[in-house]
Formats: sequence, C-alpha cells, structure tokens
Amino acid sequence: MNQSINYIGVVRSSLKNLKDCPRQESENAPEATLDIFPEFKQGISDIEKGDELIIFSWLHHADRTVLKTKPRNEEHAKLTGIFSTRSPDRPNPIGMHVAKVISIDDCRIRLSQLDVLDGTPIVDIKPVI
Amino acid sequence: MNQSINYIGVVRSSLKNLKDCPRQESENAPEATLDIFPEFKQGISDIEKGDELIIFSWLHHADRTVLKTKPRNEEHAKLTGIFSTRSPDRPNPIGMHVAKVISIDDCRIRLSQLDVLDGTPIVDIKPVI
Repeated sequence: MNQSINYIGVVRSSLKNLKDCPRQESENAPEATLDIFPEFKQGISDIEKGDELIIFSWLHHADRTVLKTKPRNEEHAKLTGIFSTRSPDRPNPIGMHVAKVISIDDCRIRLSQLDVLDGTPIVDIKPVI
Repeated sequence: MNQSINYIGVVRSSLKNLKDCPRQESENAPEATLDIFPEFKQGISDIEKGDELIIFSWLHHADRTVLKTKPRNEEHAKLTGIFSTRSPDRPNPIGMHVAKVISIDDCRIRLSQLDVLDGTPIVDIKPVI
C-alpha cells in the first residue's frame, strides 16, 4: 500500500557531497536556503524571520531496502534495527531538521542550519510548538 | 516530481472518528497500538519498553490541496499558510507524534499515547535523541 509524496521545494546548500555532511545536526551544519516551488507559495505566506521550523526532507539518495544498519565509520558496531536509528537509509527516507528562519523573500527561505545535501527535496514544513 | 511512500504498519486505536480526537496531542490522547507489517519486522528489532519514539503517520483522510487554513471550530480566525500550522490538511499529510513504548510483542508496539484515528497508516519511526 502506498501513496505518492510530492516535493514542495528543494534545498540549496554548500553541502555538495555526503562526506561534507556533519554526522549529527548539531555539529556545525551550515546555513541553507529552501526554494519553495511557486505553486506552494500560499502555504508559506505566514512564515516570518525568527520562526522556528521543522523541515521534512526526502533523502532521495537513500537505500530504501535497508532494515538494519550500523553507524557510519563504525564497522565493528552491532547491526541495529533501522527504526531505532536516525539513518537516512530506511523504507521511507524522511529527514527531520529543526532550524530558525533568517530571512524570507518570495519563495526563498533562508535557514540558520540544515544538514542535508544541496538538491535534496523538501516535502513538509511545520512550526515548532 | 514525486516518489511513492510505503506504509510500514497501521494504528489500532479507540479513536474511531475525527470528533473523538483531541485538538492537541497533549490533551488526553489515549494509548494505541502500532501493527507493523511483518516485512518490516527486522527494522523494529531494537525497540524496547520505555523507548521514546517519534511516530510518523500518513493522515490519509487529509485534503492535500489545502494551502491556507483556520483552526477547527474558529470560523472567524484569519486564514493562515498551511506550513505555519499543524493542520492535517496539507500537500503531504505527514503526522508527527511522540510517545513512549509500553510493551512490544512481535510486530505489535503498544504506545503511551497517540492522537490519530484507528486505521491510520504509519510511514516511519525514529528514536527521540
């Protein structure tokens, strides 16, 4: 059983390769920009500078067949069920990221930090409450 | 641009109708059970009693065309861009819920609270970190 997930925008970031990415969001993730597609513009009309947002990305390079994994660079660690990890390789590769809005201009939202690669699709945005 | 999202399980809950649902998760959401589909069983093998989880549901009754909304039961409120709200009606109706594991038995995970309707599909589970 499935439905389609539709991209609402895309990330513009200085992170161009997986090896550039911090292993945890807290480790110096750079600022980034969300380019929201014009057909979703009404949906971001109340987002303002200073808002704290939860950004949901779609980690499109993920291996969606993985059910057990071990941490990157820890070859001897034990295999762990994927739903006890934050690994991007999972059946539905939804990434979840918290960031603050630095500025918003038309369909471009500048964020304080984002640990995803340039070109990653965005699928949802929710306010932190 | 889109990809398919695959259901990994389904919610079993005493909440059978939208009018039974609390308006905010914190308002007395009842215990609930996740029935994980057998093909994803390996993925939950490290989930244990007491774990705090983030459950991602797919709110399949949502209206995916909505870009502006007002709070339920507040007819005179102003219309707000959907990405500044937690409304289930949104382009990709991903629900996000935090709960504690009460017990786990094979593919059934009993949770401390969940504010979604019986029969709602589950699409991801992540640990709270």
